[in-house]
Amino acid sequence: MTVYSLINKIEATHKLFIRVYIEDTDAGGIVFYANYLKFFERARTEYFRARGFELRRGLDDNINYVVHSLTIQYKKPARLDDKIAVTAEVIKVGKTYLLFKQRVLNARNEVLVEADVKIACLYFNTSKPQRLPSALLASL
Amino acid sequence: MTVYSLINKIEATHKLFIRVYIEDTDAGGIVFYANYLKFFERARTEYFRARGFELRRGLDDNINYVVHSLTIQYKKPARLDDKIAVTAEVIKVGKTYLLFKQRVLNARNEVLVEADVKIACLYFNTSKPQRLPSALLASL
Amino acid sequence: MTVYSLINKIEATHKLFIRVYIEDTDAGGIVFYANYLKFFERARTEYFRARGFELRRGLDDNINYVVHSLTIQYKKPARLDDKIAVTAEVIKVGKTYLLFKQRVLNARNEVLVEADVKIACLYFNTSKPQRLPSALLASL
Amino acid sequence: MTVYSLINKIEATHKLFIRVYIEDTDAGGIVFYANYLKFFERARTEYFRARGFELRRGLDDNINYVVHSLTIQYKKPARLDDKIAVTAEVIKVGKTYLLFKQRVLNARNEVLVEADVKIACLYFNTSKPQRLPSALLASL
Repeated sequence: MTVYSLINKIEATHKLFIRVYIEDTDAGGIVFYANYLKFFERARTEYFRARGFELRRGLDDNINYVVHSLTIQYKKPARLDDKIAVTAEVIKVGKTYLLFKQRVLNARNEVLVEADVKIACLYFNTSKPQRLPSALLASL
Repeated sequence: MTVYSLINKIEATHKLFIRVYIEDTDAGGIVFYANYLKFFERARTEYFRARGFELRRGLDDNINYVVHSLTIQYKKPARLDDKIAVTAEVIKVGKTYLLFKQRVLNARNEVLVEADVKIACLYFNTSKPQRLPSALLASL
Repeated sequence: MTVYSLINKIEATHKLFIRVYIEDTDAGGIVFYANYLKFFERARTEYFRARGFELRRGLDDNINYVVHSLTIQYKKPARLDDKIAVTAEVIKVGKTYLLFKQRVLNARNEVLVEADVKIACLYFNTSKPQRLPSALLASL
Repeated sequence: MTVYSLINKIEATHKLFIRVYIEDTDAGGIVFYANYLKFFERARTEYFRARGFELRRGLDDNINYVVHSLTIQYKKPARLDDKIAVTAEVIKVGKTYLLFKQRVLNARNEVLVEADVKIACLYFNTSKPQRLPSALLASL
């Protein structure tokens, strides 16, 4: 694989469409702030799945991906019945981590929520860092 | 509309495909038992939406649908990364309530979870029962 | 242990006080119906813990307690900031299961939600039924 | 109120003890990353309640507190049955916002998770920023 194609693939953004259900909302009438992290995790999972990687198989192979840290800005709320798009894009590849840029967009393509999420690759049994699997790197 | 077509429509089963994400699972490695109620609610919501009814607009019109009671049997667990089908089927229509039969099926069409869910129609402001909207009844 | 003391202990009701937080509510302004199952699970967990049993240690010992089935009636909603009591009481002891009666009560001791929950004891690795641990039975 | 007493009170840290239940965990065997935001919200709510402010009454008075942004570091995981302490401390008071430092500590007082959470005060009906209520400021 050439450097060019690697860069190209790393820049690819996965987009997942999600419907807001009543379970996602709170008494303020908007999506509860913790639930956007569920949406982001779903989009990252589909990003990996689209490249041939599933989480459960990873756990079986002693590979665990955990969130190391994140920053998030809540700009506008999503509401019940909204159809939103949730994106996942790798913006940095480290030896033992990936940095994702993630966004929630409404139907008019406005950014509602934006986050940088650092995902660390750990051994499932010891919780120590491990290098990202080469097959994963090749697929990005 | 003839009685025949009404019956036909009432028997129609809505089927929603759902992916099991890590948010749905628990430390036992399976879907947490409360989360099937989220899946069932999503399927009922899509059942209503397919017939032209959305929840938020209902709240604006002082109509609230709440779960009155339910029974549920957990037969086999769903697991991380599973793709499941969640069904919603109205099996009884009362003056102020609907009774749904709902199931979670795996990829081999086995029933994992099964429930009867009674949905009551209330005034949003007073929480008193109200008759099901005639437009909703006509659409079932 | 005499039969008398066994009966006495089985009838003991565990009561857990829970505050309703915004995470528990939905856009209808009330506790989302699935979340009462979380409350019930917390109360059962404390019921077991009060008798010397913790869930994680159980998993380590290849014992898993799963919900087999339940029926639930939603009578009145709990709301944001409410302080509720959630009870757990064993009303039947089988070879491989326990049947719990559980209730959610408000500050005026009104029953908001009521459920019968059947808990099956399984081998964690095979998901086959196993007899309830004798130490657990002795503690009930 | 003197500046001294204000500073003193602002530095006061609210500490809430929380038990980790199975609902909080995921198939990785640890607390799901979004759920720490629930814990932080509970601790902030109790911080406000200890000063005489409840959320629902706020909504009735057209005051809504929403999370504007946050950063979070996940250092060590909490696990099923763990008893954790969750802290809330106001480290900056703006005209229309509060900045909280929040931590999750285990029984040995190790920091498991740490976050800075910016809470904006909005009009509930318009979602426009409003000044923090003077009674709230006086109570901090």
